[in-house]
Amino acid sequence: MRLLDKVPPKVRVVEVGPRDGLQNEPVVLPVDARLAFIEELAAAGLPVIEVGAFVRFDRVPQMAGTDEIFRRLPTNGSTIFSVLVPNTQGMARAAQCGVREVAVFTAASEAFVRRNINMTIDESLTTFREVMAIARPLGCRVRGYVSTAWWCPYAGRVPGENVRRVAGALYEMGCYEIALGDTIGAATPGEVVALFELLSSDLPLHALAGHFHDTRGTALANVLGALECGIGTIDASAGGLGGCPFAPGASGNLATEDLLYMLHGMGIETGVDLPRVARASGHLAGLLDHPLRSRYLQGGSHEPTRG
Amino acid sequence: MRLLDKVPPKVRVVEVGPRDGLQNEPVVLPVDARLAFIEELAAAGLPVIEVGAFVRFDRVPQMAGTDEIFRRLPTNGSTIFSVLVPNTQGMARAAQCGVREVAVFTAASEAFVRRNINMTIDESLTTFREVMAIARPLGCRVRGYVSTAWWCPYAGRVPGENVRRVAGALYEMGCYEIALGDTIGAATPGEVVALFELLSSDLPLHALAGHFHDTRGTALANVLGALECGIGTIDASAGGLGGCPFAPGASGNLATEDLLYMLHGMGIETGVDLPRVARASGHLAGLLDHPLRSRYLQGGSHEPTRG
Repeated sequence: MRLLDKVPPKVRVVEVGPRDGLQNEPVVLPVDARLAFIEELAAAGLPVIEVGAFVRFDRVPQMAGTDEIFRRLPTNGSTIFSVLVPNTQGMARAAQCGVREVAVFTAASEAFVRRNINMTIDESLTTFREVMAIARPLGCRVRGYVSTAWWCPYAGRVPGENVRRVAGALYEMGCYEIALGDTIGAATPGEVVALFELLSSDLPLHALAGHFHDTRGTALANVLGALECGIGTIDASAGGLGGCPFAPGASGNLATEDLLYMLHGMGIETGVDLPRVARASGHLAGLLDHPLRSRYLQGGSHEPTRG
Repeated sequence: MRLLDKVPPKVRVVEVGPRDGLQNEPVVLPVDARLAFIEELAAAGLPVIEVGAFVRFDRVPQMAGTDEIFRRLPTNGSTIFSVLVPNTQGMARAAQCGVREVAVFTAASEAFVRRNINMTIDESLTTFREVMAIARPLGCRVRGYVSTAWWCPYAGRVPGENVRRVAGALYEMGCYEIALGDTIGAATPGEVVALFELLSSDLPLHALAGHFHDTRGTALANVLGALECGIGTIDASAGGLGGCPFAPGASGNLATEDLLYMLHGMGIETGVDLPRVARASGHLAGLLDHPLRSRYLQGGSHEPTRG
């Protein structure tokens, strides 16, 4: 085997900025601004965009109007618009909007699941089976997130076997794809490779995705590790939305621009227009209270390069 | 061969912050501040620190007092303090200070060498042979930089054969190590792997080093590519000195903290104390006119992690 031999020729980029990004921004953006942003991202060619969440809008005002966004989204393009649903009530609201794909969110660390969704991991899996029972007859696909797949802010290192168990349960109940999340951006490439190698003994590679945070600058190195394992789906957030460069503990989502820059530089096809994503992020940036975290946006797009 | 098989168990980190970093900062720091910074970095265990440059101080005031720094540096530690010398005059000044290692700087792109040091590549190599003739009898080691090893801001993509020719000439004249520089931070891991594989057919791996910039967020992914080729020496700049997060075209040196975080997370020994490097950068940060670029410093050191 030669170096980089298993890196896939095409990668599917799942855009999570309008949900995972904006949900973690202190500024609450109105529906019109979010809708315009999503439409620009879709026009840039992103194949999947997570556009909102059917949660309690009084508790998560950043996601208010997710139903309106769905009603107003274009229906003629090839982009899949997905939405996060925490439970059957959320799934019912998604069903009313005719959503074709939903995402469910749990974690590999009990401490994290308890603090974030006030359940045990097993309770979250039971809930998702109920979500699945609504989604399946509607032909709605379900994507599963396994957060804290490497490190937990409360419990430290998370054993790979925990991830294997949760990811396996999600796959078995019918999730078509499981995204492993480095929630606090603490993983390094050796750990990424080890976990994907462990999971790929149970699950098909095409059912696994990487969701990395750039909190410590390792996101693209971790992406490279995942690609080398043959992983072909990577999550990213336009502009790096969801993290402020100077806020301690900011979520620090991997920026879509930085991901695309690396993938395209490696000759990997994504079907996404990088300058157009950068323009969409640029339009949104003025509405936030801090600069965007994307390295590409901060400097990389300004220099003469790649003639 | 398994993934990450050739990654070396130990990596030598070459600290370039006090020279490559500070030389590219708009603020000119006094000798006392630079000396304190260098001493803190040495105390953190960095094996090699490039501390200054024997250039014309009227043109590069950031490096003024490099001779005084050398006179005042501790001589009892194991850190090697090196200095950049552009020509024989610089080498003569280094010799007067009893310097044990110097660095010479050229590039693989004619356009870049012309604009930066107003020579052709061959003229720069002739100059360095003269430097070598002074250095060798003194037992002073010479390190060679090949800048724009992948991309040139003026000429675009740089052919690997150009790098091979320049790196080969530097090695042949006696440079013990050749650092390949991604000067504008435009390279991606496939290109990094391809170039190190090309060069390693001529040169021993231990004579090659990687010098990456994080302009577009790819620095650690490029480091990973280099490590996978078996490269065991990586340059970095404490705090990411030498680049402002929001200055278009900033040099964007890879931050030593981010590099150490990844290496240590991969179980690679460096002998360097990461929190101590972070403290040194933190002390310096207050003297600059912008926040430091290091992701680790911006957020990664604040969260509970790797308990």
